[in-house]
Amino acid sequence: MDITALFNLSYGLYIIGVKDKERYAGCVVNTVTQATANPVTVTVSINKDNYTNACVKKAGEFAVSILSENAKQSTFGVFGFSSSRDRDKFAEVPLGLTPSGLPYVNEGVTGYLQCKVTGLVENHTHTIFIAEVQEAENLFKEPPMTYAYYHKVIKGKTPKKASIYSEEINRSEDSPGTYVCGVCGYIYAGSREEFERLPDSYTCPVCGAPKSKFEYKK
Amino acid sequence: MDITALFNLSYGLYIIGVKDKERYAGCVVNTVTQATANPVTVTVSINKDNYTNACVKKAGEFAVSILSENAKQSTFGVFGFSSSRDRDKFAEVPLGLTPSGLPYVNEGVTGYLQCKVTGLVENHTHTIFIAEVQEAENLFKEPPMTYAYYHKVIKGKTPKKASIYSEEINRSEDSPGTYVCGVCGYIYAGSREEFERLPDSYTCPVCGAPKSKFEYKK
Repeated sequence: MDITALFNLSYGLYIIGVKDKERYAGCVVNTVTQATANPVTVTVSINKDNYTNACVKKAGEFAVSILSENAKQSTFGVFGFSSSRDRDKFAEVPLGLTPSGLPYVNEGVTGYLQCKVTGLVENHTHTIFIAEVQEAENLFKEPPMTYAYYHKVIKGKTPKKASIYSEEINRSEDSPGTYVCGVCGYIYAGSREEFERLPDSYTCPVCGAPKSKFEYKK
Repeated sequence: MDITALFNLSYGLYIIGVKDKERYAGCVVNTVTQATANPVTVTVSINKDNYTNACVKKAGEFAVSILSENAKQSTFGVFGFSSSRDRDKFAEVPLGLTPSGLPYVNEGVTGYLQCKVTGLVENHTHTIFIAEVQEAENLFKEPPMTYAYYHKVIKGKTPKKASIYSEEINRSEDSPGTYVCGVCGYIYAGSREEFERLPDSYTCPVCGAPKSKFEYKK
């Protein structure tokens, strides 16, 4: 099986937002898909190891922020490469609330969906949630972020817990001879010399890792 | 709920291919999604009224042709706007067979997946199939067809049985003052006068409907 054949499946990128007691939790996914038109239902696969997975099961509802091409790299760092166990992610982004009070990211998105879980299937490492869309709103007229755009234009990396993760998918876009963040895989855009001249206080714009976590890769 | 918010979810376009006794059956879908990386599984929602749905349930396996930007309009006409009940669809396209003998479209695709059904969930009008990918091959180096590209560049329409169907999704891209196929929604690219000068033998390039099925829409 040539795993790279699967890299040609097309996706968008989304933030799942959920209530977790007194605060909010969430994570990045690429798997939100409309499953029926009447009623409007969606499916989404979330890794069982993601803190958000347990929160969705407990709360029975979630919001989907539909990321646009204007989404900030830091949004991927916060929601894709760290856990809501350790970090109050929605405290770090402009917060919006759906009519029922679920959190969405209020910048760099096209809009949000408010979804009520109606079923779920455990499927190996991930849970497939089936949910009815109860509210939906367009917020900004921006083109939606596709996974291909994230990978090729933003040079974004795929978290290990993603359903589409493989070592090849990240390696496939590496440029030779660049500094790469050892935490999230962010590729520094400038030359080796430019990176080395950066102050020690430099941090990864995606995940916030210190300069010392970067490695030079040929 | 603003249904148009859901138009910003991103998809590719795929042909599901399946064995049906002595011949093959299939249909267009936009809902193929990788659900896990280890093992490699995918999900796909198929309308219960699609002949292909029953064939997948019976056969327990299917192929996915991953359409590229070079896919022909006639491929959408054959697989999206007619039924395998009445038409031997794979007899009308270059046929490829996966290692286990499942049919894929052998032009205008990036490659194929060969999938074995491991579970399914009935969800209102559609069935969500969960399947393990057993073979996968890249065939042509062509950019994958996204649903957005189909809608905006190819001016393609959404079949009524699609999970994302709404009257708005087709209306949203209509140009005023054009001839439109009353069967599949194909929009004639030329002017009113040019269309009317076409011979009576003209047929829709997408679904093959006769010229008389076209209507002028403002």
